[in-house]
Amino acid sequence: MQKEAVYHSPTYPFVYAVDEHTVHIRLRTKKQDVQAVTLLYGDQYEWCDGAWITSTIAMQKTGYNELFDYWFVTVQPPYGRLRYAFSLQSEESLYYMEKGFFIHAPTHDVSAFFCFPFVHTCDMFQAPSWTKDTVWYQIFPERFCDGDSTNNPVGTIAWESMPPTPTSFYGGDLDGIIEKLDYLYELGINGIYLTPIFNAHSNHKYDTIDYFTIDEAFGNKEILKKLVSHCHEKGIKVMLDAVFNHAGYFFDKWQDVLKNQEQSAYKDWFHIHSFPVRTGPVPTYATFAFEKTMPKLNTNHPEVKEYLLRVGRYWIEEANIDGWRLDVANEVSHQFWREFRLEMTKVKPSIFIVGEVWHNALPWLHGDQFHSVMNYPFTNICLAYFIHGTCSTEQFIFQLHELLFLYPTHVTDVLFNIVGSHDTPRILTLAKEHVAKVKLLLVFLFSYPGSPCIYYGDEIGMLGDNDPDNRRCMVWDEARQNKEIYTHIQTLIKLRKTFRNETTFQLLEKKDCLVYKKECNEEALFFILNNSASPQTVVLPYTKGTKITNMYTDEEMAYESSSISLVLEAYDFAILHM
Amino acid sequence: MQKEAVYHSPTYPFVYAVDEHTVHIRLRTKKQDVQAVTLLYGDQYEWCDGAWITSTIAMQKTGYNELFDYWFVTVQPPYGRLRYAFSLQSEESLYYMEKGFFIHAPTHDVSAFFCFPFVHTCDMFQAPSWTKDTVWYQIFPERFCDGDSTNNPVGTIAWESMPPTPTSFYGGDLDGIIEKLDYLYELGINGIYLTPIFNAHSNHKYDTIDYFTIDEAFGNKEILKKLVSHCHEKGIKVMLDAVFNHAGYFFDKWQDVLKNQEQSAYKDWFHIHSFPVRTGPVPTYATFAFEKTMPKLNTNHPEVKEYLLRVGRYWIEEANIDGWRLDVANEVSHQFWREFRLEMTKVKPSIFIVGEVWHNALPWLHGDQFHSVMNYPFTNICLAYFIHGTCSTEQFIFQLHELLFLYPTHVTDVLFNIVGSHDTPRILTLAKEHVAKVKLLLVFLFSYPGSPCIYYGDEIGMLGDNDPDNRRCMVWDEARQNKEIYTHIQTLIKLRKTFRNETTFQLLEKKDCLVYKKECNEEALFFILNNSASPQTVVLPYTKGTKITNMYTDEEMAYESSSISLVLEAYDFAILHM
Repeated sequence: MQKEAVYHSPTYPFVYAVDEHTVHIRLRTKKQDVQAVTLLYGDQYEWCDGAWITSTIAMQKTGYNELFDYWFVTVQPPYGRLRYAFSLQSEESLYYMEKGFFIHAPTHDVSAFFCFPFVHTCDMFQAPSWTKDTVWYQIFPERFCDGDSTNNPVGTIAWESMPPTPTSFYGGDLDGIIEKLDYLYELGINGIYLTPIFNAHSNHKYDTIDYFTIDEAFGNKEILKKLVSHCHEKGIKVMLDAVFNHAGYFFDKWQDVLKNQEQSAYKDWFHIHSFPVRTGPVPTYATFAFEKTMPKLNTNHPEVKEYLLRVGRYWIEEANIDGWRLDVANEVSHQFWREFRLEMTKVKPSIFIVGEVWHNALPWLHGDQFHSVMNYPFTNICLAYFIHGTCSTEQFIFQLHELLFLYPTHVTDVLFNIVGSHDTPRILTLAKEHVAKVKLLLVFLFSYPGSPCIYYGDEIGMLGDNDPDNRRCMVWDEARQNKEIYTHIQTLIKLRKTFRNETTFQLLEKKDCLVYKKECNEEALFFILNNSASPQTVVLPYTKGTKITNMYTDEEMAYESSSISLVLEAYDFAILHM
Repeated sequence: MQKEAVYHSPTYPFVYAVDEHTVHIRLRTKKQDVQAVTLLYGDQYEWCDGAWITSTIAMQKTGYNELFDYWFVTVQPPYGRLRYAFSLQSEESLYYMEKGFFIHAPTHDVSAFFCFPFVHTCDMFQAPSWTKDTVWYQIFPERFCDGDSTNNPVGTIAWESMPPTPTSFYGGDLDGIIEKLDYLYELGINGIYLTPIFNAHSNHKYDTIDYFTIDEAFGNKEILKKLVSHCHEKGIKVMLDAVFNHAGYFFDKWQDVLKNQEQSAYKDWFHIHSFPVRTGPVPTYATFAFEKTMPKLNTNHPEVKEYLLRVGRYWIEEANIDGWRLDVANEVSHQFWREFRLEMTKVKPSIFIVGEVWHNALPWLHGDQFHSVMNYPFTNICLAYFIHGTCSTEQFIFQLHELLFLYPTHVTDVLFNIVGSHDTPRILTLAKEHVAKVKLLLVFLFSYPGSPCIYYGDEIGMLGDNDPDNRRCMVWDEARQNKEIYTHIQTLIKLRKTFRNETTFQLLEKKDCLVYKKECNEEALFFILNNSASPQTVVLPYTKGTKITNMYTDEEMAYESSSISLVLEAYDFAILHM
């Protein structure tokens, strides 16, 4: 047995509670090295006749990559306290415990065992229940719809005039979004995420001037309230963008610092390296990236903290929003986000908090900070497989298993899954306008665990390269909308309602096709995706005579054989209910 | 290269900040598999001519065990932001990154790199500065000294009468401790930790009746205040024991539940499974272990939380205590301890919070909860090596390296290192009264990183098996005190002042002897411990003619050779300054 490959730590996410009675435990071993793993567990205080009482339960191999097998088990410690060890079977048998490897487990020495001392529901990761069932739609307000031309800024150019530049204004606003709510409802989404809408200098509004005012080119507080209440009437949630890592150059406190320098009452609101504050040649203060117009806020200063928490509470209380998406969330302190979560959930217990973290986001997903993050690692591997064709089906499955093992299962279930955003080129452009490839990617997006999000316009096949080209105006002329993609997404959203209560998500290797199975109670759904340029045949096990429904096409079939052979054209797919 | 053995996670404790400018990074590889590791790092926003700018720095191999080598490096990211990867050299060269292993690093893809997004000092683990320099002395107040016989409980038996039983009372009290402060000062300790002193039923007081009152057999609030102020005059800190996991049977809120059952205003203060509340045959409520007289407190209930936080604040404010030791800390929620830390540090920023956690305590040592834990894993491996003789020097070094790799270095520096407590048999008893073995163990205790603690009476060679025998009355008759151990500890405490500012702790393998080196500026201290029953010779490198001082014996030596050969008798040791 390759001991060096065996890994477990009695810490998150290798052991965690999912409810008052249930604990998940995970283990990693070298690929195809260990045939079986049994968990040995008990309550450390439960002894009988001088012997500690332990139970056993078999672990399941639920994933693998190029190097490792991943094991999983669910246990229910009767008194909420858990000591445990792993019994590994290969050509040899070994116990793996907190104190190391043993041929004979020191079963009288409780301290040799791993410990999960007590299940406390308040320490668990818990996201609001509605998030798992939400399909999001991301809107860049300046480019979605101009509902009120009277609030357009000076210099606004004609809708859709090309190309958009970093400083173009087209007049999109909140009234425009209200106007298009029927369109969104018809599409089937039930959550909208707006990039920033507070008073700011740029068209993207990530350089806030006033956190308590809606940008006047977008509307005002009353219009936001109207938008939210109209959304709520249609069962649509609303999430706003909180840019707390940094302020904009024209933020009044920053202007005060520039004016009064060391005498400014706000000098500790920022990270100033030296006075006098200068913006160049090298800024004498911390910024977002090296962007001198975005001074980094000192979110650890009590006044700044109280100010930003007030912003967070204000828009929940005033406009009844349902979520906060946190910009550059990874560069703000964990301590700040812990307080943010406590304060926001006090005001609205069902609030959803999503961080922008592009990398491994585990430190923010322990249950004390975010409910979710923008799942860019998911984006990257999906684009590589479905769009760029730079990874094989086998490698894609390896990477998905790694991703599924990276976070607890109930975290994966609520991750904010995107295939594009205002920060990346549009999928149809990346796919060189190959519609079938994009459709296949979308099938995967809508069937993978998590909350999918569509970037505005992707549903009608809009094009766009890197920023600012990915922020073109929404095309409302139906003749120029791609109806094939639109109908595809609309169908997938409808079907998703039958997918969403699945209990398992299992990837199956089928050479050139990606096959996965979702189970719910006694029913199984098979997804077969042919991500190749040639037709492929997939053979699936089948119970003779039973009815199969292709959920996407609504076709029904039944066969008189014990397996079925399915031929899929290039980039075609099937969703079979059997 | 054995890729399966390579491990790093961009999470604590594999990457962490130690101050505003400094980050530690750790990596694990298969033992003797990788010859060199270089860290590649940079600021993700720093690009020049389309290329991302990275620096390199060599990592050091700072430890190993049977299976692994442990690597370490310190970096100073110029803007507080860090992206990094590892370059591993063996027969092949590989890059190890967030996205996996690569032969050629994808240096243009910043997202392939591990990320430590921003150094925030408020997220760092930080213990009060005084704790690193503290030598603790644990007192079980009922058994230390009877300073006031008028407060002795009914049934008090004669001091030192044998054997102590689970229900014996001997009359020890706070006045007794005050009376013996000169003794403690003379010994050299500068912190005392008292097991519980609040009103309780048992002699050990872990079954609290009233958290706001000193047990009347121990004294009262005024006497505690006097004790603390006398201690502070002598530079001695005082830590009390907080038993918050459970209350005692006679705690008024519990009595109210027993009396009023479901109508009790305090029914949610506990974890009651069903009414009526019954203590047997199986308690209908959660308890500490299965101890029906210790009902578990619901520390997640807002009223209980506020009550216990008030207790915590009260004794800091009233008596000016310096620390809280938290009983059964691992079975109370992390959320509770986060709030506890915030509240206590608000009242006294220099407060020291030590949890009772017998196993891997990483989840409590992130910086948001405890400053330290009782280091029982240290106890176990030290007893196995020095006392029971059940592990070789090589195995001992393996286990120490594992322990040093388990927590960040600045956490290890403040762990509460014990070789015995009121919950374990006494060291001299375990050693079958072999004084030299105990002395050797103590040399290690006082030179290993962390805050050592002596259990009252161990310094005079008291004996005692498991509880209650380990809680015998302190022997004040000097004729029956072991002066050899006393003087040994007194000497080690004095010497420790020169040990404590070391910058490195390095274990060296020397066959049958344990050798380790501590360095401070240009000076080096060598500790050579012969933990065997026969004389041993150790050869050390030496600069011809320089002066060597044996710090323990004060002998000075100088030689005309390039190495020195040291003969140590069985269980003897040398502490060389060179």
